[in-house]
Amino acid sequence: MINYDDFLSRAAERMKGSAIRKMGTVLAARKDVISFAPGYPAPDTFPWAAFSEITRELLTGANGDVLQYGPTRGFKPLLEAISGIMAARGIATSLDRLLVTTGSQQGLDLVARVLLDPGDVVLVELPTYTGAITAFHNVQARMVGVRQDADGVDLDELDDTWLRLQREGRRVRVLYVVPNFQNPTGLLIGLEKRQRLLAWAERRNVLLVEDDPYRELYFEDSASEADVRPIKADDAGGRVVYLSSFSKTLAPGYRVAWIDAPAPLAAKLEIAKQAADLCTGGLDQRVVFEACRRGVLDRQLPMLRDHYRQKRDVMVDALKQEFGREVTWPSPRGGFFLWATLPAPIDADVMIARAVEHGVIYVAGEAFFVDGAGSGRNIVRLSFSAPSHDRIREGVARLGLTVREELAQIETVAR
Amino acid sequence: MINYDDFLSRAAERMKGSAIRKMGTVLAARKDVISFAPGYPAPDTFPWAAFSEITRELLTGANGDVLQYGPTRGFKPLLEAISGIMAARGIATSLDRLLVTTGSQQGLDLVARVLLDPGDVVLVELPTYTGAITAFHNVQARMVGVRQDADGVDLDELDDTWLRLQREGRRVRVLYVVPNFQNPTGLLIGLEKRQRLLAWAERRNVLLVEDDPYRELYFEDSASEADVRPIKADDAGGRVVYLSSFSKTLAPGYRVAWIDAPAPLAAKLEIAKQAADLCTGGLDQRVVFEACRRGVLDRQLPMLRDHYRQKRDVMVDALKQEFGREVTWPSPRGGFFLWATLPAPIDADVMIARAVEHGVIYVAGEAFFVDGAGSGRNIVRLSFSAPSHDRIREGVARLGLTVREELAQIETVAR
Repeated sequence: MINYDDFLSRAAERMKGSAIRKMGTVLAARKDVISFAPGYPAPDTFPWAAFSEITRELLTGANGDVLQYGPTRGFKPLLEAISGIMAARGIATSLDRLLVTTGSQQGLDLVARVLLDPGDVVLVELPTYTGAITAFHNVQARMVGVRQDADGVDLDELDDTWLRLQREGRRVRVLYVVPNFQNPTGLLIGLEKRQRLLAWAERRNVLLVEDDPYRELYFEDSASEADVRPIKADDAGGRVVYLSSFSKTLAPGYRVAWIDAPAPLAAKLEIAKQAADLCTGGLDQRVVFEACRRGVLDRQLPMLRDHYRQKRDVMVDALKQEFGREVTWPSPRGGFFLWATLPAPIDADVMIARAVEHGVIYVAGEAFFVDGAGSGRNIVRLSFSAPSHDRIREGVARLGLTVREELAQIETVAR
Repeated sequence: MINYDDFLSRAAERMKGSAIRKMGTVLAARKDVISFAPGYPAPDTFPWAAFSEITRELLTGANGDVLQYGPTRGFKPLLEAISGIMAARGIATSLDRLLVTTGSQQGLDLVARVLLDPGDVVLVELPTYTGAITAFHNVQARMVGVRQDADGVDLDELDDTWLRLQREGRRVRVLYVVPNFQNPTGLLIGLEKRQRLLAWAERRNVLLVEDDPYRELYFEDSASEADVRPIKADDAGGRVVYLSSFSKTLAPGYRVAWIDAPAPLAAKLEIAKQAADLCTGGLDQRVVFEACRRGVLDRQLPMLRDHYRQKRDVMVDALKQEFGREVTWPSPRGGFFLWATLPAPIDADVMIARAVEHGVIYVAGEAFFVDGAGSGRNIVRLSFSAPSHDRIREGVARLGLTVREELAQIETVAR
């Protein structure tokens, strides 16, 4: 018998699966489960008819390039369309700065590989996105978290942390932030704080990685396009690596996202992508391009804002009704997630078995913390994006039952 | 001004672009160029009508999963179909061993990341596939090449190399081979040598990475299915990590390939893939699955064998006519490539500018060597797979003109 552990790289020895992906597996196994776990967009919002028509036109065989290998940078008309999208977001970019990626997860992975050596420090929000944690973890970077206020990372703690690491002789290369409707908290970084973050990155010579998948999904009752202005829009010094994606606005089944990075970094990211998957799928890129060109994407956005805002309302109402003041959360002004703090005695990770029994799943908060301090123990990330209104209500009711039983059992044990 | 070099990881500092991808850029810029460079399949062989029909049925919106995120391991019905394909190749596999990858390039990248630390040694055939070189290079592995005979790597040199590295205290983890119609040489490893390679890997406790994208494309005038039996088919000990792909048999625009690895390694590869791109595109996987289920793939294969064999014939005839005995090559018994040795004074890399001027491109042989000894200087890899018969003839004529001019100039300079 071979001991395969002997053959693992140091990175592989440390590799751990994602908590969210694990919940995906639970979901696949139990079809009756209502899932508040993965941040899936709602498939009934996808523009199926447009996709179908576009694809039919692309697959005639008239243009062989459609299913051929393509350039690593991406399909040029799509890159140009992305350049237009960036302009609308206040970012004047150019083709030497853009790279199409196979989903934003690949973007994070490439950024990690190009910027980080084992032991290098990445500063992250506390809590932060698990996909970024995994990408940074897999290059053996060390993540150090900075606490968030209601309007984003605490700037004093950020600088204190940097100073402490500096004294310890650690190299801080990157600050990773999700300014708009952060995964998992749903928080929005305030506009003034964005400016100050950028100035801080300049002062401390740190690169800022700005991950922005949710920005189009602001809820118009409490946020506007002005509130989601990218940090990159004010990045005169070339300090920001910006990532965004079509997964939440068109469909994640097309694995199409992009990076805007300073040209010298974009060139390295391109080479890293060559080795990672040669190129993003040519058909996928063309479908996305046509969806941009034909106005499909633009027509989706107001509808999506409305769709997800309504679902947030349904979840918020259901939670209030089910839990009263026992459960609290920062009200999501956009995006997919509600970050709910359950009664203190609850360990959300322990409770997951009971939740599955009752037919509901969530992601336990601890997965999003990198401080190793057991933070987020009684917090859950609830995605309201995919289920229908009725399923959201039913799921919250199941969660209520789960929480009451869990509390009762904890009390019994305590006696 | 930021000096971005200060921010690069050690891996990124060393990253170099692929020679083949570079030729792809030349090609994109000059539409009149006849390309023998990238190993592109012929788009006129793709089953466009079947793809179109399958896609139309998938994109009705009836099944939201089609464009949703999916499991990292892959779409289960596709994994089961792959299991059937493996059985037909003589490999009894199981779902815990299989992983769908976003093209085989991703497979190579994941294998590199899971098995190799910086400085670890990978033994490779000399010459070998540039995509593998890039993947191993990007994890800072050290590649050591072993000379090939007409029937594959020289086993004596292989063991001598292992012994030498052992003495030097280097850790040899992996032997990477492309046994069927190798990229770039077109060579086929003999059946007996396959057995001996496996026994050698057992004896020296090395993992064997078997990369097999071309096996279905054997030319029936000089090879049979028996000749392409995977090494993995005799791998009772779990010594072989096997990679294959639908890119050459269906279409590369669908980025769908797979790995068959011992279960403990497959589990690590899955986690590495989570961080790399979450999942391979759901629509792509379903189209490929349906192409398998409906017999589209099976119907493609005899046609493809014939198609590429004819193109090889056209190229071989044209080369003979153009060059007589001045240029030599091992006759390809399958696959996409002809490995042509030009007259000794020629430096194929230097000649590329002249070739582009005359409207033809190839990949200079040196890119496939890892020995740093300038091997392959007067060799070119010619892909006969994509161009039409007429374009192949015309391209070889242009190559003839290029070579004659180059020789004349070399002679002039020598005087």
